[in-house]
Amino acid sequence: MNTSTDQDLPSDVELARRADRQPIEDVVAPLGLEPADLDQYGDHVAKLSSATTRRLTDRAASSDTRYVLVTGMTPTPRGEGKTVTNVGLAQAFDRLGKTAVAAIREPSLGPVFGVKGGAAGGGHSQVLPMKEINLHFTGDLHAVTAAHNLIAATLDNHVHQGNALEIDVDRIVWPRALDVNDRALREAVVGLGGTTNGPPREDAFVLTPASELMAVLCLASDREDLESRIGRIVVATDADGAPVTVDDLGVTGAVVVLLEDAFRPNVVQTTEGTPAFVHGGPFANIAHGTNTIVADRAAGALADYVVTEAGFGADLGAEKFFDIVAPAADITPAAAVLVVTVRALKYHGKDLWPVEFDALEDPDVEAVRGGFANLDRHVGVLQQYGVPVVVAINRFPSDTDAEVDAILEHCRDDLEVRAAESTVHRDGGEGGIALAKAVDAAVEGHEGTFAPLYDRDAPVSEKIETVATEVYGADGVTFTADARKDLERLERVGLETAPVCLSKTPYSFSDDASKNGAPTGWELTVRELRPAAGAGFVVALTGDVLTMPGLPAEPAALEMGLADDGSVSGLF
Amino acid sequence: MNTSTDQDLPSDVELARRADRQPIEDVVAPLGLEPADLDQYGDHVAKLSSATTRRLTDRAASSDTRYVLVTGMTPTPRGEGKTVTNVGLAQAFDRLGKTAVAAIREPSLGPVFGVKGGAAGGGHSQVLPMKEINLHFTGDLHAVTAAHNLIAATLDNHVHQGNALEIDVDRIVWPRALDVNDRALREAVVGLGGTTNGPPREDAFVLTPASELMAVLCLASDREDLESRIGRIVVATDADGAPVTVDDLGVTGAVVVLLEDAFRPNVVQTTEGTPAFVHGGPFANIAHGTNTIVADRAAGALADYVVTEAGFGADLGAEKFFDIVAPAADITPAAAVLVVTVRALKYHGKDLWPVEFDALEDPDVEAVRGGFANLDRHVGVLQQYGVPVVVAINRFPSDTDAEVDAILEHCRDDLEVRAAESTVHRDGGEGGIALAKAVDAAVEGHEGTFAPLYDRDAPVSEKIETVATEVYGADGVTFTADARKDLERLERVGLETAPVCLSKTPYSFSDDASKNGAPTGWELTVRELRPAAGAGFVVALTGDVLTMPGLPAEPAALEMGLADDGSVSGLF
Repeated sequence: MNTSTDQDLPSDVELARRADRQPIEDVVAPLGLEPADLDQYGDHVAKLSSATTRRLTDRAASSDTRYVLVTGMTPTPRGEGKTVTNVGLAQAFDRLGKTAVAAIREPSLGPVFGVKGGAAGGGHSQVLPMKEINLHFTGDLHAVTAAHNLIAATLDNHVHQGNALEIDVDRIVWPRALDVNDRALREAVVGLGGTTNGPPREDAFVLTPASELMAVLCLASDREDLESRIGRIVVATDADGAPVTVDDLGVTGAVVVLLEDAFRPNVVQTTEGTPAFVHGGPFANIAHGTNTIVADRAAGALADYVVTEAGFGADLGAEKFFDIVAPAADITPAAAVLVVTVRALKYHGKDLWPVEFDALEDPDVEAVRGGFANLDRHVGVLQQYGVPVVVAINRFPSDTDAEVDAILEHCRDDLEVRAAESTVHRDGGEGGIALAKAVDAAVEGHEGTFAPLYDRDAPVSEKIETVATEVYGADGVTFTADARKDLERLERVGLETAPVCLSKTPYSFSDDASKNGAPTGWELTVRELRPAAGAGFVVALTGDVLTMPGLPAEPAALEMGLADDGSVSGLF
Repeated sequence: MNTSTDQDLPSDVELARRADRQPIEDVVAPLGLEPADLDQYGDHVAKLSSATTRRLTDRAASSDTRYVLVTGMTPTPRGEGKTVTNVGLAQAFDRLGKTAVAAIREPSLGPVFGVKGGAAGGGHSQVLPMKEINLHFTGDLHAVTAAHNLIAATLDNHVHQGNALEIDVDRIVWPRALDVNDRALREAVVGLGGTTNGPPREDAFVLTPASELMAVLCLASDREDLESRIGRIVVATDADGAPVTVDDLGVTGAVVVLLEDAFRPNVVQTTEGTPAFVHGGPFANIAHGTNTIVADRAAGALADYVVTEAGFGADLGAEKFFDIVAPAADITPAAAVLVVTVRALKYHGKDLWPVEFDALEDPDVEAVRGGFANLDRHVGVLQQYGVPVVVAINRFPSDTDAEVDAILEHCRDDLEVRAAESTVHRDGGEGGIALAKAVDAAVEGHEGTFAPLYDRDAPVSEKIETVATEVYGADGVTFTADARKDLERLERVGLETAPVCLSKTPYSFSDDASKNGAPTGWELTVRELRPAAGAGFVVALTGDVLTMPGLPAEPAALEMGLADDGSVSGLF
């Protein structure tokens, strides 16, 4: 994501190269971790050892640990800088003498080689080593890819070898997965070439972050839970319409074996040497879009502050963190930071679809004010969960003081929430001190208790209605005929009261990307429900969802190369 | 591969677990390597650093370094124990006070989860840590998979975005790759679903070890050579019939970036703490079937002995090592060890196709003698290359002294080559001392110089004829009409005098797997030639070649699971 455009700052890759990196064992020493707690991958990357992972995640998070969720207003397609704010805020807490961990998602190779731009913060608020994190890192995504495709191969092999489970080949719902942007694999026919290869059937490939295994890896609380979730994954339907699971295929154990290392948090550092757990990276529409629960819990057992992030805007990301992740992780969020930008506010104050970025650079306080409706609704959404909200203005070089002041004033006078300017991209942790202090003050002055939005025993349709009306601002929900049939089938997989994971455009509160601001007078249309029994939620699709991106006309890969000194050109 | 069946030995995985493992920096200290020469992956796995890889491979191998190639007679489908002999022989040299490195291939996940049995030696002659080596290890195969599929995605994207290179979609020869045994992916149609995903076309998936990128990784002598080979890979033909390369697609640099770490040798240890470089794993039929040249060269710069291995029998593996690998690596082999077993000799002395293993366990000296024709021809093949040959009898518990003595006697009296019994599976390096001493004696008593079999400037058809007649024992070669057309096209890709890589059944000297012993009076039929411009050889197909295995009715994956102590059950 493009998090800033400071003209006078060197590139992210150049800053990453210049940064002083400490040995990883020194980075985590302030957290009380010993070298024996780490399995190192070179000098600057480690995984927590198996024993340490278990010890830390078994231990309940200290009641003093403050989990700060970084979320955002409805973004433009360039993103508004949640990750850079996340990393910078952790650095700011560190500067204030607290122990802090930045917990974020790990990048997928698909987007790295597709669209230029890293996924590891930027400027003076990045995670390092940037090259490794953005490439193979510790192999977690490769492990998910391998495990995913082992299930697929076993499934087709089962059918080929006699189909004792009576799997209906027209109702296989387990796709194949690759971590590359490849539109040619979205729809395919496999099993061609005669009876030695067949039977032929329609198939699809998804990007690895869209695999249900990735959601499972991120939501499992310990190894037993991981194994149990994997076993429950539904891969097909049999001749009687009953679900066929990974347990039925008999490869749950093999999948656990393949995911053993991937299940342990990756430990790196920020540009300022603050510890960062970069672990797991599920899609934020058909999945929940946050780093692993294991990383959140391990960090919570070690640090005063855990700063973590959810995908897209608060309507999608924070909602899922609060309603799906926090209950599964047994985590009580202490505060929510809502990242806003002058750019995005202007967009929401104008009629600019598709987004015209050039039109967003001219100083225009009134346009900024026009976007407050979007900001206000996000603040209201977050407050419903009982957490204090702090607005972080991620400042860009082209922003004027008048524009920033207008936002600060609106938050103070109209919303009565704390707000702070953040310049962490340019200034590192120092640029996040005001934000960190605002978070502390907000937590200390807050009355009320965090609670998920919906009753955990409510039926799925009711949960969807709650999210649609209370979070998205819809008047109600329309279920298509297909979706109504899907609702009826949920009982068969035991998900009739599961949490819901709504897949919706991130570019509007509504299900229409062109409606900016805070649209009213609309109904959410749910077209299809997909049970994700391993993840433990029901995915509700409200529009076309792309689980396998394509490459653009000029992929980022075309610019890449390796210099003699080992540095990568064209990565960012 | 099943290398032995000692009933009284614990399982390979149990022995691997019990073995005392030293810190990897201590393992390589006798080679003169410092901790700074390594990038560690935990305590027992490392890669040579980039700088050290370059330093060691730039340096010409010491003229004192003895490269010992371990090859074998025509195997049964269970394998005759080349890897265990390789590892055990390196341990034996170590015990004799020499520095030695075992250089072997790294396993592919496909077979690991398909057919029970590891690929890392066995008993007291294994490489460790067994679990890691047999699973993701350092991610080399995952990197090859990712790089392979990036090329494929870029290719289809190029066509989709307007096809400026005028690629003929019916003549795309670059498949996709996955490291899983999955017959359903052998033949597929991709690009379905309309113009946003298309155009549709026929496609195929190969197992990652069958990717030309794997051959390239294993044959490249340094990073510049790697880049140059990648760029030359032909992925398709354009409207004029001209080759389209990875350079034309513009992703050579990105592929180098993805393969940077995979190009550096992996360093582990054997059960006795002897250093082992386990690096690269290409197919041995459509590719050359040996570990990387970089590993061979780096090991040669460090050790007195480098013990390395080639796939299948000497007709396939040693031929390719001597004619393709050694010239590319600028390595002079010092000796060849030919692994034989009582079991395989009996098989070649009887009419037993398909192989009936039960019938091979009964003591039968005459049946053993019946297999000498196969052994003799392999010895003759190896001697043509000017290297001394030592026969290693990999002894199984069911073998009788009379059977073993018959082989020793035959080698001494009839063949006049040195031979030694090897019990390295049961006894570790101690069981290979006699073999090590025989190798030393053979090298010291040898006159003659190693030379590849064919003239490097000879045309491809002549090279194929040389291998067929001088190595396989054919009367001649028949090229099908298709193959003759392929021959004519080689000039267009600059491979008209390239080395040849013959793909033939490993279970017979001939192209008919059912002909055991040393078949005569037959002609080799070449059906198709595939230029591999990156690998720098021409693949000659003599029969159906399976580049994507399938899973058996009861895949090994079904037995696997992870215990609480982190040990894997069902892996071996």
